[in-house]
Formats: sequence, structure tokens, C-alpha cells
Amino acid sequence: MSFFSFELDPSLAADPVFDLHKHGKMSISPTVSLASRDDLSMAYTPGVARVCEAIADDPELYPDYTWTANTVAVVTDGSAVLGLGNIGPKAAMPVMEGKAILFKQFGGVDSIPICLDTQDVEGIIAVVKAMAPSFGGINLEDISAPRCFEIEQRLDAELDIPVFHDDQHGTAVVTLAALRNAAKLLGRQFADLRIVISGAGAAGVAITQTLIAAGVQGANVIVCDSRGIIHADREGLTGKKAELAATTNFSGRSGGIAEALIGADVLIGVSGGAIEESALAGMAPGGIIFALANPTPEVHPTIAHKYAAIVATGRSDFPNQINNVLAFPGIFRGALDSRSTTITPAMKVAAAEAIAEIVADDLRAEAIVPSPLDPRVAPAVAAAVAAAAMKDGVARREVPAAATQAAPTPTH
Amino acid sequence: MSFFSFELDPSLAADPVFDLHKHGKMSISPTVSLASRDDLSMAYTPGVARVCEAIADDPELYPDYTWTANTVAVVTDGSAVLGLGNIGPKAAMPVMEGKAILFKQFGGVDSIPICLDTQDVEGIIAVVKAMAPSFGGINLEDISAPRCFEIEQRLDAELDIPVFHDDQHGTAVVTLAALRNAAKLLGRQFADLRIVISGAGAAGVAITQTLIAAGVQGANVIVCDSRGIIHADREGLTGKKAELAATTNFSGRSGGIAEALIGADVLIGVSGGAIEESALAGMAPGGIIFALANPTPEVHPTIAHKYAAIVATGRSDFPNQINNVLAFPGIFRGALDSRSTTITPAMKVAAAEAIAEIVADDLRAEAIVPSPLDPRVAPAVAAAVAAAAMKDGVARREVPAAATQAAPTPTH
Repeated sequence: MSFFSFELDPSLAADPVFDLHKHGKMSISPTVSLASRDDLSMAYTPGVARVCEAIADDPELYPDYTWTANTVAVVTDGSAVLGLGNIGPKAAMPVMEGKAILFKQFGGVDSIPICLDTQDVEGIIAVVKAMAPSFGGINLEDISAPRCFEIEQRLDAELDIPVFHDDQHGTAVVTLAALRNAAKLLGRQFADLRIVISGAGAAGVAITQTLIAAGVQGANVIVCDSRGIIHADREGLTGKKAELAATTNFSGRSGGIAEALIGADVLIGVSGGAIEESALAGMAPGGIIFALANPTPEVHPTIAHKYAAIVATGRSDFPNQINNVLAFPGIFRGALDSRSTTITPAMKVAAAEAIAEIVADDLRAEAIVPSPLDPRVAPAVAAAVAAAAMKDGVARREVPAAATQAAPTPTH
Repeated sequence: MSFFSFELDPSLAADPVFDLHKHGKMSISPTVSLASRDDLSMAYTPGVARVCEAIADDPELYPDYTWTANTVAVVTDGSAVLGLGNIGPKAAMPVMEGKAILFKQFGGVDSIPICLDTQDVEGIIAVVKAMAPSFGGINLEDISAPRCFEIEQRLDAELDIPVFHDDQHGTAVVTLAALRNAAKLLGRQFADLRIVISGAGAAGVAITQTLIAAGVQGANVIVCDSRGIIHADREGLTGKKAELAATTNFSGRSGGIAEALIGADVLIGVSGGAIEESALAGMAPGGIIFALANPTPEVHPTIAHKYAAIVATGRSDFPNQINNVLAFPGIFRGALDSRSTTITPAMKVAAAEAIAEIVADDLRAEAIVPSPLDPRVAPAVAAAVAAAAMKDGVARREVPAAATQAAPTPTH
């Protein structure tokens, strides 16, 4: 057994990123005083016993008298972390801590990173179900496709708290917001857009479903994976890809990305695979390219601008950053405020519309989405999501619109 | 589906205990700045990816660059909560939050309450093992006997982080500390004490084992459960009770608590069952009674004082409160500081000695243990536990004695 010294590796400690991550990025704090015997007898025994008994008698008191109603678990198995792949639960933790503190910073949501030492679908479902009483919501993160689809669907069906896979739906919501504003700026009818999505993983599948839920015609959407266009006659399609084949590409186009892009108004890249400039040349002029792969977009923005009027990426060093932080803090804020049992498609579309609306009065080709740091975003998303939850009948609590807009951040 | 109003039940809200518990008792906070794009690119993408890759390459960096090395899960299944019994995971949460904030307040340990929706032994073990990468230690809490014994033993054997069932070992450590000081004050040889333990649940079993590990002779210990004295000839004994029969009561005494107490120097009540005054009359004069049941001690202190020179309870409104908060924050502080793989018997005995030592210079019959609020306790316990961990070869990091004593609280 080796002994570590108290000093960290000096070569890492001199690096500002490693220096910032030293000892992690979050902590917990009491929100009540523990300074006197009276404090202890109220917050702990014997006083706490009365609160326990009250909850045992009436479980509806649970969210009122525990921190759980404001608390979300960020759960991963480390199988698809950023662009790094299957690096496992421990190496995933710095991302999950980052996510947790973004939840708090932007949405006022207390969030706990949980990195699981299993990549078995049934195992993950069983663990999350067992832990679920401890939380008001579950944010799944960086779980690889296609396992992520079954895990999210099963948990969402079997739990009475919201379950949200951010790599699917967070990305889809922000992409929808950006596409709404891009179409508006270009004077295009959203419903008529001819859209190519490059990538049929978690993000590609969810973007396709969300765009169709928001009014795009599936007939006009073409999805490509690493083997080319997904179409109804392609052999070997199962699961979500079979669903995509049935709900998109009604003309049955086949081939690769170049064939897909012929006449397209919109390219959305969520694949990580580079797209050659020659393929872009087939696009309809004056269109839209979102090249969202990180850190290397499928198309460099300089190239993309030769073939499209509006370009977005996932990077902070180019204009129009499509960043999930615009969505997940406000979505969970709204879902927790309304104590929703789930997050419906309408709640996701409402979130996208709220994000788009923030910059609607000052739309420019290089500002189709708000900055990730814009403090107006999460409150507006939360209010829209809570309203949609009430409309969809999945809210367990009424959220006065004024209250949510005035006080979007947490109850602590 | 019912809609709740934003107002809490007015009859509960007027109660100061319920008022204090409103929205729970804890929150999380970022410990890094998230105010600028540069902040985001360091704490989250793209910067965080380098930290993930470094941990993937060298897992020994994990505790240095995540919050996990300072974080403990407080895990329950809600099966034996305080004296309330099997009230389930949700009604248990106020206790677990209380425990979590005591960890932080007294030990500087970040702690997360996890209430599990399963009471199956294999299920609990599987869930905790799966979550374990997220934490630096596991504090099991309020899990009923005998399941608690197997759960703790299996998890401790199968995980490389400390696993500690506080209802067993926390109680045992503080009881040992109190008994050491009581014997010293009375001028008795600790090893010669004739001890009766009333209760053979989690606390009774652990107290018996810990007292024997600390030097009491098992021959001189008698343990009673609800059926009376545990002895080698009693039929139907299994598990821990069979172990107790083999390691205590060498004279094979049988009968009830009255028979057990004849000639005893010490009575330790951890049963919740009342003990009649007539039974106490058989004790050797000038002895020790610890009546630890909460909220109603097995013997009222006024009665106990008729038969014993030193009396302790679990209550804050009588002298000599045997309270686990004297133990668990410092024990985990020391185990985390030394990155121990487990908590050995010697570490528990060292914790007890450190607690006892705090008041050793001013021992009085009504002050055999420190106050739960005494700020000297946790640092002293942490230093003693870390030193014992190093001596036992279970530490993964060397803790300079001076460093721990000077700066026992966390690295954040």
C-alpha cells in the first residue's frame, strides 16, 4: 500500500485547471444553526422525531420538510463522458461535480453527483430506483446510447419524479431554441425546413424527436449515422434507429451525408465525425449549420459560413454557443417548483421557446441564443416549464406565474 | 392529482421544530467561481476534460481532484429510525439530514443523506457498492438488527473505503469512553469490571465487542435480550447472539435481568425496555449505570442514583449525555484524512480514548464525557483515529500528527 504525501503532484498543481479542481468543486452546508443544545434538540433528537412521525403519517409532507424537493441527483455510469468515451465512474466525477454546481449556480437546484460502478442496464435502473426517495429529480448524464434510451424510459415510467437525460433532451431543447430563432431571422417557416441531422446517438435521436414535436415535418428530416442515411429499406435497423426510419425521410433517400445534404436548409451535426466541404456545397443557399461536436466541430465555422447564413457550434470561443446550461437548470427549477411527476415533450418545447424568446428582440446572425451566463434564462425557462407542467396535468403543485418569475431561485 | 398550495400546513408551521425543518436543513454550494466564460471553461468543458483524462490515466489522482475524499454517504433503509421503528425511507430523511449536517458542523465532513427504497440485504449491499465510487466513506444508519450486521460486514469487506454503522460503533465508542472515565473516577480496574448489557441489538452487540476489544474480560460480561440472559446452553441462538453466548458469561448464568445484575458493577441499558428498581438492588454498591434508551431511559436517573455512584443517559437534559455526535464526526474526519480502507477495532478504541481524555483532567461524577458541543472533541478523535489507522496499516496517506491536530477540519 503506497503512502501519498499531502502535496499534490507539482506538475499538475501548477496547471490552473488542476489547481481549480483540487479537492473538488462543491461542498454541503447546514441551513440551520447547530450552535447550542437547543439547536441540536430541534434539528436532531429528540425534536426531529416529530417531523419523522408526521411524514410517516402523511407522506405528502415529505417535500415540505426535507431538502429533497430541491435536490437532483446527477447520475452517470461513466460510459460516454464528454468526447472522452467510456472512462468509467471515477474519471467522470469532475464532469458530474461541474454539472451539479451549474445546477445550483443557474437554477438554485441542490444537486449531488452520483457515479455508479455498474454499466448494466438493469443494475443502473435498480440502483436509481432504490435511491430515488432521496431526490426530487434524476438527471442522467453521459450514459452511452442505446442503453441511455431504455434507462431513461424505464426510470421515467417507474418513478414519480422527473427523469431527464441531459445529453438527449438538454441538447435538443437548446438546439430547438437556436433553430427557432435562426428560422425567424431568415424569414423561413419553421415547419417547412428541410433538416439533416448527422449523428443518431443520444443527441441526434432526441433532437429529431423534439424538432418533430415542435412542428417540423418528419418527412423533411433526414438522419445519418456512421453508415449513412437512415431510411426504411436499410437492413439491420433496431430500436431508436428503426423508429427514426419510420418517422423521417419519407422520400426514402439513401446514401451518405453528401446525398442527405442535397437541397437541405439545415445541417445539425452531433456526431463528432468531420463533414467534408464538398458535401456542404449541395445545401440550399442561405441556410443554417449547427456543428455541435466538441471540442472539434464537424465543420469549422469559417468553412460553414461559405455555405450557410447562420452558424452555431458548441464552443464558447465562437458566436452562438449551443450549450446545455441554457436548459437544464431552468427545466429542473420549473419541474421542482411544480413538483412534476415527469418532464413532458410540451415542457421541453416550452423551455426551448423561453430560451429563444430571451434574445427575440435583438436577433442577429451571431446571437441566436443567449449567453450561457445570461441570468434571465433560467427563471424564464422555469416559469415556462412549470406552466407547461400544469397544462399537461403532471404538476403536483400550482406555481403562480408571478411567484416563479419573481423568485425563480430556490426556497432556501 | 391534488394540488398543494405554496403555504405549509398552518398548524405545523406554527411549531418551531416544524418551522426549522421547512425545506430541509442543508444545501450544496460551489466552491469555485462560475461568474465568467473563463470560469465555465475551467470548471466545466473544455477544461474539465483534462482532469477526467488524468484520473482515467492514474486513478490515484481521484481523491485529490474530486470532492469525494471529503464526502460520506449517510445511508439508511428506514427500518429502525430512532425509537420509531420501521418508518421507511422518506420518514427517515429528517434524521439523515440531521446526521449529515452534524458531520459537517463537527467534523468538516461533507455528507449526503441517501434513503433507500429497499430493505432487502442483497439489494442494499448492491446499491451501496454501485454508489461507492461517489464517496470517501459510508455511514450506515438506523438499519435494523440483525440485517445491519451482515450489511456492514459485507460492505466493509468488499469496498476499499470505510464503512461504519453508527448505531453499532458510534454508540459503542462513546459508551467505552464514558466507562473508562467512570472506572477511573471510581478507582476501579477497567479490566475487572463485571458488566451487564441489557439489549442485544445493534448497540448491545457492538458495545460488548468493543468493551472486550478494549480490555474488559468477556468472562465477566453478561448480555440480556428480551428473553433474558444469553448463555451457551440457551436454545435457538444464531448469528451474533450465538457469538455473544460463546464470548461472554463464562459462568453460564441464566435467568432474567435481575439474575444478571446480582453482583454487577456496571449496567448498560440499550434496550428501550424498562428495568425494575428491584433488579438494581442486586448490583454491587457504588457502581455505574448507563441507561441509554431514548427518549425514556431504562431506569430514571433519580432511581439509578440510589444504586450507582455514576449515572449516564442518552438525554441532553441530564448530566453525562452519551451522544454519538462525540464520535462519528471525528472518526470519519480521521479516516478520511488518512484515506483509510476500513475502520479497525483499534481505531474505535483510539477514538474512545481520545473522547475520554478531553475531560480527564476535570473528572466529576456528572461530567464523565465532554459536551456534544465541545469543539476540542472531533479534532482529538480525528488525530487519534488517523494515528491508529497508520499503525494498523489501513491508511493510504500519512497524516502528520501536528497537521491533524492543528487543522482537523476539512481541506475546503
